[in-house]
Amino acid sequence: MSFILTVLGSSSALPTATRFPTAQVLNVHERFFLIDCGEGTQIQLRRFSLNMSRIRHVFISHLHGDHVFGLFGLFSSYNLMGRKTDLHVFAHRDFEPTLAHYLEYFGKDLTYRIIFHPFTAKRPDIIHTDKHVSVQTIPLRHSVPVVGFIFREQEKLLNVNKEAIQKYGLTIQDIRKIKEGKDFETESGKVIRNSELTLLPYRPRSYAFCTDTLYFRKLVNYLKDVDLLYFEATFSNKDRKLARMTGHSTSVQAAELARDANAGRLIMGHFSTRYKNTEKLLKEACAVFPDSHVVEDGDRYEVALTRIASS
Amino acid sequence: MSFILTVLGSSSALPTATRFPTAQVLNVHERFFLIDCGEGTQIQLRRFSLNMSRIRHVFISHLHGDHVFGLFGLFSSYNLMGRKTDLHVFAHRDFEPTLAHYLEYFGKDLTYRIIFHPFTAKRPDIIHTDKHVSVQTIPLRHSVPVVGFIFREQEKLLNVNKEAIQKYGLTIQDIRKIKEGKDFETESGKVIRNSELTLLPYRPRSYAFCTDTLYFRKLVNYLKDVDLLYFEATFSNKDRKLARMTGHSTSVQAAELARDANAGRLIMGHFSTRYKNTEKLLKEACAVFPDSHVVEDGDRYEVALTRIASS
Repeated sequence: MSFILTVLGSSSALPTATRFPTAQVLNVHERFFLIDCGEGTQIQLRRFSLNMSRIRHVFISHLHGDHVFGLFGLFSSYNLMGRKTDLHVFAHRDFEPTLAHYLEYFGKDLTYRIIFHPFTAKRPDIIHTDKHVSVQTIPLRHSVPVVGFIFREQEKLLNVNKEAIQKYGLTIQDIRKIKEGKDFETESGKVIRNSELTLLPYRPRSYAFCTDTLYFRKLVNYLKDVDLLYFEATFSNKDRKLARMTGHSTSVQAAELARDANAGRLIMGHFSTRYKNTEKLLKEACAVFPDSHVVEDGDRYEVALTRIASS
Repeated sequence: MSFILTVLGSSSALPTATRFPTAQVLNVHERFFLIDCGEGTQIQLRRFSLNMSRIRHVFISHLHGDHVFGLFGLFSSYNLMGRKTDLHVFAHRDFEPTLAHYLEYFGKDLTYRIIFHPFTAKRPDIIHTDKHVSVQTIPLRHSVPVVGFIFREQEKLLNVNKEAIQKYGLTIQDIRKIKEGKDFETESGKVIRNSELTLLPYRPRSYAFCTDTLYFRKLVNYLKDVDLLYFEATFSNKDRKLARMTGHSTSVQAAELARDANAGRLIMGHFSTRYKNTEKLLKEACAVFPDSHVVEDGDRYEVALTRIASS
């Protein structure tokens, strides 16, 4: 029941000797969701021992090179590896000509299908749902269309207590009904209450990824109660005018959003190369929202399971 | 008077946790020539502290992704850095649509010019000459058009001995004539022989880069007497049939070429990921040509200056 984020790249547009451009992998129940794909993503996947083949879905926030230039190498490597599984790519609809160019000039006769899911970035939208997770876009504000992504673990059905299964000799049909919340009636007509038969479910976990956006108040609503929030902190508070001019945010703005949205934990990245280190940015954020962190390439952040308290 | 090769990436088509795709920098008298540009090249340049801005010429051997996918990030980073100097890109003429696509979708309004020098890969051709170096293509044999490159340091004029300048009070005009090989006549009419006034010049150095090619005999002529030879050794000798089938070479073939062409030194790369390490490939090559080496990312190879012996 994993829910683990690994940071593959955390630089802003210019990579450094230690920070690759933006890319992350979210592991939800051992399915890997790739979020942005800056240059070198496939190298980082190998470096951090993440099995590339587990990725079936790629989500691209926007079409700036530092968020997409790793896709072409990834596509080609999958082909060399003889991949058979479909790869689903979610990106702004303007990505279509670039994908078409890649397929024509570098990706003829791929061993697998790339299935493109275009979106418009104009309104929040659920762009993917499966039995483990749903993915929603958040329209952000930058020089080009850009979205954030919220990954929400699907609510689980109730789990039936193993002891109850044995004690009452429950059939598969009985278990299905109990999972849906029904009580159970024994052969002798005794009614056993659902709460006596089931374990309390886990609270569904959530992760929000927001980068390349200026700060705006409405984000608080979008990010309400998210467990783990990645928010860009390209600039320090003293450079907040520059942040607004360039369509970026500051560490303090990231922390204010985390605080006001009641986020569980804030992680920040996409730091401008103008700062020699990230100490000041971290300090500024922690003063507003104590559970703030700056990410490094290779960092892992796990959101732990918590049972929903008995009512 | 540097003549130093730095290996940025040495993997075959699939990068590994420690080897990036192909890219190298040749430093000739502090001018940087970039040879191939696999994904992550700009990151390796930073990692190995090579000043990106010194690159004015990029040479692309062929249009497979593992040799070109680093170009787009490099182009975009130069733009973010406000580059003003022209960047000369030498590649097969089929690269034109990809370059045009980049410029339209990712590189509008660049701060500098990308000047494209297309070639055809059909015959050997001098594609670049300046006062420091000339660059010649070698047609190679692979599944797509591919060339090798030979970089040859330009022959220097004779250097005039500083002591002679003082002793005879040589003027700039005198020095120019002496550099051209003329004798000098003093005011009293005494003829001083040119060899008494000049230092012997250095022997021009050379570097050849050949990757993604099967072995063929004519290469010996092209590579004759090269000082430093990079040749692909994708496969071990036992997999030589596979090498031929896939348009690649073996360590033994690389070493035979180095030996038969009278190369100064052989360095090998582009190793298939099927080999856990390169020990066997190195051993095979050294048995044929003792001065064989396997490269790692970050390795530097300098060709030392040698004076031409007095005749």
